[in-house]
Amino acid sequence: MKIAILGTGQTRFGELWEKSLTDLAQEAAQEALKNSHLTIKEIDALFVANMLAGKLDNQVHLGPLIAEKLNFSGPSFRIEAACASGGLAIREAILSLLSGEYQKVLVLGVEKMTDYSTTQISEALMSAASEEEKLAGFTFPSLFALIANAYLKKYKVSERKLAAVSVKNHYHAQFNQKAHFPFKITLNQVLQSPAVAEPLKLLDCSPISDGAAAVILSNNQSSDPGSESYLRSGIVSIIASAQATDTLNLSQRGDLTQLSSVKKAAQKAYQMAKIKPQEIDLAEVHDCFTIAEILALEALGFYPKGQGAQAAAKKETYLQGKLPINTSGGLKACGHPVGATGVKQIVEITHQLKGKAGQRQVKKAQIGLTENIGGTGGTAVVHILTNKN
Amino acid sequence: MKIAILGTGQTRFGELWEKSLTDLAQEAAQEALKNSHLTIKEIDALFVANMLAGKLDNQVHLGPLIAEKLNFSGPSFRIEAACASGGLAIREAILSLLSGEYQKVLVLGVEKMTDYSTTQISEALMSAASEEEKLAGFTFPSLFALIANAYLKKYKVSERKLAAVSVKNHYHAQFNQKAHFPFKITLNQVLQSPAVAEPLKLLDCSPISDGAAAVILSNNQSSDPGSESYLRSGIVSIIASAQATDTLNLSQRGDLTQLSSVKKAAQKAYQMAKIKPQEIDLAEVHDCFTIAEILALEALGFYPKGQGAQAAAKKETYLQGKLPINTSGGLKACGHPVGATGVKQIVEITHQLKGKAGQRQVKKAQIGLTENIGGTGGTAVVHILTNKN
Repeated sequence: MKIAILGTGQTRFGELWEKSLTDLAQEAAQEALKNSHLTIKEIDALFVANMLAGKLDNQVHLGPLIAEKLNFSGPSFRIEAACASGGLAIREAILSLLSGEYQKVLVLGVEKMTDYSTTQISEALMSAASEEEKLAGFTFPSLFALIANAYLKKYKVSERKLAAVSVKNHYHAQFNQKAHFPFKITLNQVLQSPAVAEPLKLLDCSPISDGAAAVILSNNQSSDPGSESYLRSGIVSIIASAQATDTLNLSQRGDLTQLSSVKKAAQKAYQMAKIKPQEIDLAEVHDCFTIAEILALEALGFYPKGQGAQAAAKKETYLQGKLPINTSGGLKACGHPVGATGVKQIVEITHQLKGKAGQRQVKKAQIGLTENIGGTGGTAVVHILTNKN
Repeated sequence: MKIAILGTGQTRFGELWEKSLTDLAQEAAQEALKNSHLTIKEIDALFVANMLAGKLDNQVHLGPLIAEKLNFSGPSFRIEAACASGGLAIREAILSLLSGEYQKVLVLGVEKMTDYSTTQISEALMSAASEEEKLAGFTFPSLFALIANAYLKKYKVSERKLAAVSVKNHYHAQFNQKAHFPFKITLNQVLQSPAVAEPLKLLDCSPISDGAAAVILSNNQSSDPGSESYLRSGIVSIIASAQATDTLNLSQRGDLTQLSSVKKAAQKAYQMAKIKPQEIDLAEVHDCFTIAEILALEALGFYPKGQGAQAAAKKETYLQGKLPINTSGGLKACGHPVGATGVKQIVEITHQLKGKAGQRQVKKAQIGLTENIGGTGGTAVVHILTNKN
């Protein structure tokens, strides 16, 4: 598999009250079109990733809605797989390119979340959980708190290790102008922030954000737009795409401390790309809560079970470390506009592999990975990207 | 393109208060597995079509939910494109097979609608329309009434011609045990039924239904399950799949009396299958309202503009006519569990092309077509099927 990334776009993530969902979608799409030197007429299909507009804004028909705003008349539709919507839209776009049906497609992830009350958002997000979990009174922080407690107990890890993940991701976000929270925080600030669901504190949790991200993908390696500067910066390709499913109910899983769907998807992706986890230079992982980043590092094969908690604490996953994780700031500090997240991960890795990540550039990065999950890991999507030819 | 249909399943459509969404999903899936002689372990991926569970039941994460119930551990996710969700799920499944990523996939359309109040359903369905249309107070009956009025006026057609479509589809439904309304009605009953949005009356409108439909698709023509009876009944294949988009807003279209997205998708599909509209032996079209069937017949190239209204009135689209349309009873009489509809259309045409449609069997049918739209035609999906090798 080799799918070329022709262009990328991203709005700032944050509380963007002055912009509507379609404003954000247009901004990200136009940027991706501009930097790929393409017009909308050259795009064969539009894939829109969004989770919540149906529930929050009573609008599910986002394909034709955004197509109308972009003056696009080709096939368009929405992909939804809870918080993995963005990653899955990338994957479905890739499969459609591999089928030969389309040559160039636009994948757009967008979410508008900050115009609603906390109650509305909290209820809407629970649409990614099971009925049983809803009836038992769970929220996503409390579901991930169960996981975190099981992990801390099993591996005798302290809450400081969770907090270290948040500190690292905020450290990275200070170099990202598009981040929701582009500033550093301290370990004590995390530990002293209010408890949301023990052991998770406010600063262990990713925020509610508005934002959009877009990428233009092509199945034709030679379909470069001819721009010299574009060619000089090299073509980044997606060389593996994999998806896996776990039970929706946390109660049906054998081991709370393992993201089985991520493990399965990663194994498939490594096989497809013919590489080992050790060859990955950097990754964007789904740190909806600090514990989720730790479990991701283990499920992706970067750390043995129980050792993922050491990564941020020992600074190994910092920008300057041996395996930089979430250089964008991750969901925690870059923000988490749900449908946009999986697409933004691809945007960040593309910037890094093109050497265009500015102050947060990882040196000599050649292979990057993205990991995007839905719910507590019921859905997992993994992609591998490279700038090698 | 040649995608084999290995099995089909369908629940009865209707007010199925004793069955939950996952009950319906399991019933249709198990039937499809059974009649394809496959076990769930032999399926590579699960595509779930559903529109309303997010809004009505606060449940969007249907891939892992239904996977868990089916004891399925492969990739699974939900496809949503308003009332075209089912057709689009079929299309995305086909593209994933053509990409070579999967060999056998299960496509499941399911909707649970009758447990909610009319107000809840009416509001939820408007999630497929534009903001402007919602603010103006439109509902789907009134949007299609605008279209119907424009058509009746432009082509000097009487309301009796609309009613004839409903009478035909009820005539067909009497032979379909799975239909929501398996009985005949008269032209006068339609004309005398209460006005919903002039000129559309109650019996011009498809109902609110529960139901599920499933198909198992394969990219391997030789992957027959080896059953003699299966082989005797012949393999039905999908030989064309096309999707097109129109503006979401009705007000942005040049001509209210034409379904441009259907026309575009149909042209692509005919080109792909290398056939002409005249070669189609029967079709299932999206008669959410009687006027929609008439416009579909014209957009699909079966009748010139303004002539589609004659079809049912002259009995040409009856079971025994020259071009049987909606032998299942259509959305009107078989029922319209939104996410299931596009999948059920494929199930019906498959039954017909296998010669297994019982009392409603169309004689010597070799090529069938399905047309599924979302909203007022913002999304359109067209498939062509055949039993020829």
